[in-house]
Amino acid sequence: MGKRVNQQWCLKARPQGQIEESHFEWRRAPIPELRKGGLLVRTIYLSLDPTNRIWMSDIDQYMAPVQVGEVMRGGTIGVVEESNDPKVAVGDLVQGVWGWQEFAVISAGSVRNTLPKNDSFPLTAYMGLLGSIGATAYFGLLDVGKPLKGETLVVTGAAGAVGSIAGQIGKIKGCRVVGIAGSSEKCRWITDELKFDASVNYKTENVLEALKEQCPNGIDVDFENVGGTIFDDILTLINRNARIALCGLISQYTHIDDQKPFPGPVMFRNVLMKRARIEGFIVTDFLSRFPEAFSALRKWHAAGLLKYRVDVVQGLENAATAVNKLFDGSNQGKLIVQVSDDPTSEMLA
Amino acid sequence: MGKRVNQQWCLKARPQGQIEESHFEWRRAPIPELRKGGLLVRTIYLSLDPTNRIWMSDIDQYMAPVQVGEVMRGGTIGVVEESNDPKVAVGDLVQGVWGWQEFAVISAGSVRNTLPKNDSFPLTAYMGLLGSIGATAYFGLLDVGKPLKGETLVVTGAAGAVGSIAGQIGKIKGCRVVGIAGSSEKCRWITDELKFDASVNYKTENVLEALKEQCPNGIDVDFENVGGTIFDDILTLINRNARIALCGLISQYTHIDDQKPFPGPVMFRNVLMKRARIEGFIVTDFLSRFPEAFSALRKWHAAGLLKYRVDVVQGLENAATAVNKLFDGSNQGKLIVQVSDDPTSEMLA
Repeated sequence: MGKRVNQQWCLKARPQGQIEESHFEWRRAPIPELRKGGLLVRTIYLSLDPTNRIWMSDIDQYMAPVQVGEVMRGGTIGVVEESNDPKVAVGDLVQGVWGWQEFAVISAGSVRNTLPKNDSFPLTAYMGLLGSIGATAYFGLLDVGKPLKGETLVVTGAAGAVGSIAGQIGKIKGCRVVGIAGSSEKCRWITDELKFDASVNYKTENVLEALKEQCPNGIDVDFENVGGTIFDDILTLINRNARIALCGLISQYTHIDDQKPFPGPVMFRNVLMKRARIEGFIVTDFLSRFPEAFSALRKWHAAGLLKYRVDVVQGLENAATAVNKLFDGSNQGKLIVQVSDDPTSEMLA
Repeated sequence: MGKRVNQQWCLKARPQGQIEESHFEWRRAPIPELRKGGLLVRTIYLSLDPTNRIWMSDIDQYMAPVQVGEVMRGGTIGVVEESNDPKVAVGDLVQGVWGWQEFAVISAGSVRNTLPKNDSFPLTAYMGLLGSIGATAYFGLLDVGKPLKGETLVVTGAAGAVGSIAGQIGKIKGCRVVGIAGSSEKCRWITDELKFDASVNYKTENVLEALKEQCPNGIDVDFENVGGTIFDDILTLINRNARIALCGLISQYTHIDDQKPFPGPVMFRNVLMKRARIEGFIVTDFLSRFPEAFSALRKWHAAGLLKYRVDVVQGLENAATAVNKLFDGSNQGKLIVQVSDDPTSEMLA
């Protein structure tokens, strides 16, 4: 013990524009001895999320940026291989934010969640439906968007991890749900599998005209993941007292640190004209209420009302290129890197 | 009776850019006979407001635009000269939205408010502190902005009719209040007379740098009347969970109907990063609660905590040019046109 070598992706340079592998350094480092209360966790899964791109920039953001030279930040699930804390056993499955590395030496206090070993859900579900993703969709839609039965909900990034769940919750709440996505496969998935009422393929359709057709009564709630011109089309069609739950602005992230500022929403005046509300939220602000979300999401899933999919990339070495799947739209479902063997996968197979 | 001639400003052409007198037609029209329930009201005061420019455009807006050929819409106070309604007496002082004309033939049901004849306030106060202006400041700040004691409130258009009241209510609620205005006279007025904590002259100062200095703890609430680059400077400095009460976007109104869209807020991403809330509102949505606002505003005025000023232009014929005082910033206080003699002015003199 203590002689094994860790492998890590460290931030080498802040990207200007698209993320390249060259922005990271692949580092081999010895694993330090555990202190009292320390754990050695072997990473099984690493979560890749659009917000990673924000953390890589040094703009004023919702938490501290990753510093150049540091291990890249990321949500992880791992198995405890050594424990100097009496409350944590070797073999425990734990979840935290321990970064893009094969092993993490951490304090037991940084464990956010201990996961069950005999669950009907695979471990990856805890990075999606039963993790921050599911909670983001749940609180963003219900607490911020506050949709009412019969209203029209538009979801951007609708085939993405969060958007696909938000749209299905909208259906559960009795809304007409229209999803905007970037491929015909994604559009088919959200309508045929997830039972959205309609989809718009922003790469092939005139979004404004398609939304006019699919939202004949206007737009009451927008679950916004994207920003940019699509958001302008939505603002053009919002109803009086519309609510915009601002979850993300993924169309901007690649250029978020450009000196030349990104254009703002041109139809911003409609926030005034329609007495609309735009509200940004970050899921960690709802941390104390996560159990409420997971209880509801499990119940809806058991009733067959919620589906999700994961897109698992093999190998930590591929993380620095795989993260771009989120920005070119090639991921299909929650993007996860499998870093090492999942001890629960046999149980499910 | 019935032979007198009315004089009216009718919308002749929708402005593209600045309002010119040529966009109106000065029309002389006979005054029609009253029907049952009808009133003949002689206009005493006409309210000029930034939103008039919106009504002159045909963009999708919060109420129907004024149609070309119609009398220009405007809030008025008048005296009843003839009444075919038993509940309204000749000589009554009435308030409504009866347009840019010397006389209005209206139904008694369109009277929004009957004003007292022996009041400590002049009639013009009912177009400002005790009218939609005061209610806008009251509900916009307290219901939408929700300032807390000790927070920093920024008010744009701070020397304007609404902004000056909103800022004073902010002081009453225990905020640090920083007002942005467009002349040194206005800045002196809001700090020296209205007791704002600080002012920023956007015509002579670097607004971002001045706000950084005057808001050392960041910005918690923005009472937004202006939009444009000043709004971007504010978004740059908002705190977590900031609230933006979006009351107006006066910097955009002159070009609101341009084909080329107005730039949106470049720092829009901070709504996400800071979990901020932007909420548009229109005061008429609070109509049922106006008595609550006026009761509070009267109480604060009586206690010496609220001051206001009016800028009265003489003569309906000057309305079409005077309205531009709102957009070039040359008005000092609530802009009102005196159309005919005020029968209460002797009582106050």
